[in-house]
Amino acid sequence: MITQLAALVGDKYVLHGADLDPWRSDWTGAYRFEPLAVVRPASTAEIAAVVRWANDTGTTVVPVSGNTGLSGGTYADGALLLSLDRLNSIRDLRPDARVAVVEAGVILSSLHDAADAVDMIFPLTFGARGSAMIGGCLSTNAGGSNVLRYGNTRDLVLGIEAVLPTGEVVDLLSELHKNNSGYDLRHLLIGAEGTLGIITAAVLKLHPKPRAYATAMVAPQSLEDALTLLNRLQEATGGAVEAFEYMPRHHIEIHKQIHAGAREPFDTPQAINILVEVAATAPRDCTPGPDGRPAIAAHLEDTLASMFEEGLLLDAVVAQNEAQRAEMWARREAAAEIAMSRKPFISNDIAVPLDKVAAFLNTMERRLPDCDPEAQENIVAHLGDGNVHYTVWPSSDDAGLRDQIMELVEDVALSFGGSFSAEHGIGLSKLPSMRRRKDPQAISTMKAIKAALDPKGILNPGKLLP
Amino acid sequence: MITQLAALVGDKYVLHGADLDPWRSDWTGAYRFEPLAVVRPASTAEIAAVVRWANDTGTTVVPVSGNTGLSGGTYADGALLLSLDRLNSIRDLRPDARVAVVEAGVILSSLHDAADAVDMIFPLTFGARGSAMIGGCLSTNAGGSNVLRYGNTRDLVLGIEAVLPTGEVVDLLSELHKNNSGYDLRHLLIGAEGTLGIITAAVLKLHPKPRAYATAMVAPQSLEDALTLLNRLQEATGGAVEAFEYMPRHHIEIHKQIHAGAREPFDTPQAINILVEVAATAPRDCTPGPDGRPAIAAHLEDTLASMFEEGLLLDAVVAQNEAQRAEMWARREAAAEIAMSRKPFISNDIAVPLDKVAAFLNTMERRLPDCDPEAQENIVAHLGDGNVHYTVWPSSDDAGLRDQIMELVEDVALSFGGSFSAEHGIGLSKLPSMRRRKDPQAISTMKAIKAALDPKGILNPGKLLP
Repeated sequence: MITQLAALVGDKYVLHGADLDPWRSDWTGAYRFEPLAVVRPASTAEIAAVVRWANDTGTTVVPVSGNTGLSGGTYADGALLLSLDRLNSIRDLRPDARVAVVEAGVILSSLHDAADAVDMIFPLTFGARGSAMIGGCLSTNAGGSNVLRYGNTRDLVLGIEAVLPTGEVVDLLSELHKNNSGYDLRHLLIGAEGTLGIITAAVLKLHPKPRAYATAMVAPQSLEDALTLLNRLQEATGGAVEAFEYMPRHHIEIHKQIHAGAREPFDTPQAINILVEVAATAPRDCTPGPDGRPAIAAHLEDTLASMFEEGLLLDAVVAQNEAQRAEMWARREAAAEIAMSRKPFISNDIAVPLDKVAAFLNTMERRLPDCDPEAQENIVAHLGDGNVHYTVWPSSDDAGLRDQIMELVEDVALSFGGSFSAEHGIGLSKLPSMRRRKDPQAISTMKAIKAALDPKGILNPGKLLP
Repeated sequence: MITQLAALVGDKYVLHGADLDPWRSDWTGAYRFEPLAVVRPASTAEIAAVVRWANDTGTTVVPVSGNTGLSGGTYADGALLLSLDRLNSIRDLRPDARVAVVEAGVILSSLHDAADAVDMIFPLTFGARGSAMIGGCLSTNAGGSNVLRYGNTRDLVLGIEAVLPTGEVVDLLSELHKNNSGYDLRHLLIGAEGTLGIITAAVLKLHPKPRAYATAMVAPQSLEDALTLLNRLQEATGGAVEAFEYMPRHHIEIHKQIHAGAREPFDTPQAINILVEVAATAPRDCTPGPDGRPAIAAHLEDTLASMFEEGLLLDAVVAQNEAQRAEMWARREAAAEIAMSRKPFISNDIAVPLDKVAAFLNTMERRLPDCDPEAQENIVAHLGDGNVHYTVWPSSDDAGLRDQIMELVEDVALSFGGSFSAEHGIGLSKLPSMRRRKDPQAISTMKAIKAALDPKGILNPGKLLP
């Protein structure tokens, strides 16, 4: 096998034996495994050759890019791990056309930098952006903090190129905004977690770079008042809210414990801590007015001031410079680190309608002790899109208890019209939820598609489909 | 058959014999056919029963809603025509959540009215909105004039309900903005032209209703200057351009011929006529300023004035009231009527990158006479998204000539990085183009999906896939 793979991608790029050490685990550490080998092809053609070989020999293949997933999607026991890290070129980037053609191994923050250099942004962003790669972002339809304004990953993709389970290459690298020509295979492969094909490149939408940001930490009386703030800000700015992130007291406390320099957002510690950011591109919103503030900052400050007067806010701090803004974001982006600071942890990535977040959290607080009186909650939420990262630290690592807690979370989320999986995907860890909660006709349709496109079950077997 | 169907949906709702007269043609009149019968179920359950019956008896089924398609997608010779017109309720409409749950038989303009009544909009719009129904909009991923700002139909859909080719119902009526739980069957069915399932209902996104519009007819020196105008307006307004529509001289001329009251947009007839509309929701853009104009109108007028001074515009007229705005839109929306005012006609719905529209049109003007020296062009374009409706009136109805002209149009569009099918879909009329131009791996993947989900080929056979 090693010799055959070496013939396809070069000796140096087939790892085995001791070289596998850094490749035997997913990022969370929850999954450890023994891959057959790691192969690091340099091009779409090399990936196609490897997948063709795998199909011929009946070898299963697990694609991996940044390996920052949270659901065990890169578990590769007894499979060939196919790393996309060498497909790392930005093939094209044209600000006038607002597109970038990017390979799967490009790190998200590298694309951010490249877009920034031409005064554009690629809006997708989340804590792991310094390691996560475009291939994984697309395969999981990653979300993050800017979904509120710019949509999920799939909303930022015009075209893709992919290697199918047979090793054939499908070229759908269109830059067009209207292109109705058959089934939308782009959207089928995005979010398929590498089970239907390996996305090798994509045409991504760039957006104009905001010329002015205004960022604040806000302590409303309640989550209901937080939603009032969100709605008033959207109204005042014509929909310019980029992020609206909720951190409860325990998030702030643990952040201070694990980061030496971390501070309280307000002079008086608050129960509800909201990070809000608005941004503007139009000159009239960005140019400083008579009072020296750009209109977008004035809208934020005026909205906060009027809500403060109404008694809906307990405190608010507006970032006065980039360092203060960065501190606010660092606090939010420590979320994954905070969730994993204690083990075992049970990661739940649920979504409910925006106005049901408070009800979901209240119900969980009441009902969690029924499962595990000693369990502790750890919460952070993209409040602007209803996505709650509801981590539980249970009293033991018992598999039965874990499943019981996950079932409870699903029950409560679904009772409020929610979903058991918002932005992290299914992978391995959400398979029981998928089995229990997804529409059975939807699952059997997905299985029929998988069987049709990957009859030998070569690509990322055992993931996504129960 | 009639008796069996009557048992499923009621006597009154199975049409046959002379009752079929209004159902024997698509809207363009290009396709005439003899359906087995027409069935008009009243609910998702009745549709499921009919499709189950069809699957059991091997009867092919063609779904139809508003029947305003332009590609022959409802051709139903020897098939059962399943009309969705009785599934016409808006199940739910909640402005706070910005969603409407709408059945497939709801007419697009009825949804516009319902949204308007709660101060919201459903942005999808095009000439046929008074007849087109939601089911058809979704099944063809309809485009229209507002795609520039709000995206295609698929960008406005959060969830769907559908009857699969087996008669099973799949419930994906999620209202969530983040819901990564397996393959995105919603996006697979949207744009599948009824070949993989019959969409029966959808959760649609509503948008806040703009409080101020500014609309103008503009005559730039060239299409290049038109793009400069588009870019400057987007810059000045922070992306508030809703429509940017191109009509050449012959469009204006024919419109005057076929509509008694139709007028020239400018005192002096112009070669290039652009309809531009900007819209705003934020109070600061809508409240009249010291000069009495809302900021959004001022941005439009100031941009036009400065381009006029630079000599890039020959003329411009800003609508001063709703009647003038309506007149501008009526001229644009006569496009389908104009294209079909002469027969035979060859309808081409292509897309190219925005900055290639002029090159596409120039090349076609030069090369069309090689195919047919007497052919005449009829053009209208969504210039803001690169979508050109390039109709040809050929000198004869010869099928060979038709195909030769379509091949030429495809050649030229693809040479500029374009697509042979932008927003009307494939249906029957674009099958030759699909066969010639679509990535062969994409076609074989689509065929595998079709065979997996509809092994008997019950739903809308012979469409979309060559």
